[in-house]
Amino acid sequence: MKKISTQLKQFQYFYPYTVALVGARSGTRVNYMACAWHTALSFDPPLFGILVAKKRLTHQVITEAREFTVNFLAAEQVKLSAQMGRISGHERDKVEEFEVKLAPSQVIASPIIAEAYVSFECQLVDTRTYGDHDLFVGQVLAVHEEEGMFNEDGVLNPRKVSPLLYLGCDFYVTVDPDTLKHVVPD
Amino acid sequence: MKKISTQLKQFQYFYPYTVALVGARSGTRVNYMACAWHTALSFDPPLFGILVAKKRLTHQVITEAREFTVNFLAAEQVKLSAQMGRISGHERDKVEEFEVKLAPSQVIASPIIAEAYVSFECQLVDTRTYGDHDLFVGQVLAVHEEEGMFNEDGVLNPRKVSPLLYLGCDFYVTVDPDTLKHVVPD
Repeated sequence: MKKISTQLKQFQYFYPYTVALVGARSGTRVNYMACAWHTALSFDPPLFGILVAKKRLTHQVITEAREFTVNFLAAEQVKLSAQMGRISGHERDKVEEFEVKLAPSQVIASPIIAEAYVSFECQLVDTRTYGDHDLFVGQVLAVHEEEGMFNEDGVLNPRKVSPLLYLGCDFYVTVDPDTLKHVVPD
Repeated sequence: MKKISTQLKQFQYFYPYTVALVGARSGTRVNYMACAWHTALSFDPPLFGILVAKKRLTHQVITEAREFTVNFLAAEQVKLSAQMGRISGHERDKVEEFEVKLAPSQVIASPIIAEAYVSFECQLVDTRTYGDHDLFVGQVLAVHEEEGMFNEDGVLNPRKVSPLLYLGCDFYVTVDPDTLKHVVPD
């Protein structure tokens, strides 16, 4: 049986989404937030999009820096995701308070998150408002990947890393590597 | 140890992403494709974005129909995802050939996929080109959800449904419900 709603009280049906820390440095300010609303946009050139509400400090920092990094977290880092997602950089310096380890980027000035299993360095190429969020579009200039986490085609190995997945309302889950399948049409 | 690449040979590091069938009806033509590049864009109004390459028949059908549906698949439906993802509607009538069960929408004219555990009816409100894909932005006018799959706050229950997750290169996986956690900052 299906229930049909035309007046949405919540909008979380699309989860689970992977969690990334997204942010940048502008001047002396460095700030990141947990972000589950993101998607690849293009293979060639490689473009990646993240959604950030205007009220977030991360919005201001990325807009000023014209660049950002995207840093994917493993399930073990769920506490960091909660801290970076539920607390605003306007109120507290999250990087200092939660002792987030940063590492230098190769191409851009803003740092990556050292503990992420894969990070993208992005140059901001477009910003567009959609409702209550802005889409920041980044051209991916460099990728930092933890060795052994991806196969030679760049496919994540779920026996090596358990990606953190968000379900909404502070619920998280990860994948079951025993369910891995390779399926092509007959 | 981290490996740094500035010349990308592949771009799949962001997976796993949930798989949705996206498509529409235009005149007598109804076509869907499997889509892993999608994201929520806004809560209020509820906006949902999907990425579709220009060469896909789905691109043409959605552009003509000015509307589309988004239909999320469970892990058991992996074969359907492979068929709808790897075969072009330009060559074969996938809905007929694979006996995809459709159901009427409540608000728009294009049908939903009956087997999906949750479906969105979307009105096309923006189209924007990013590299080799176009972002179709839909305002969500109605949601069809299989009863019992989501809690009262709209959070997916991974003991009731195993969402199909794509890893790239025809690899799929799903979640482990035993890893479900509710985590908030101290």
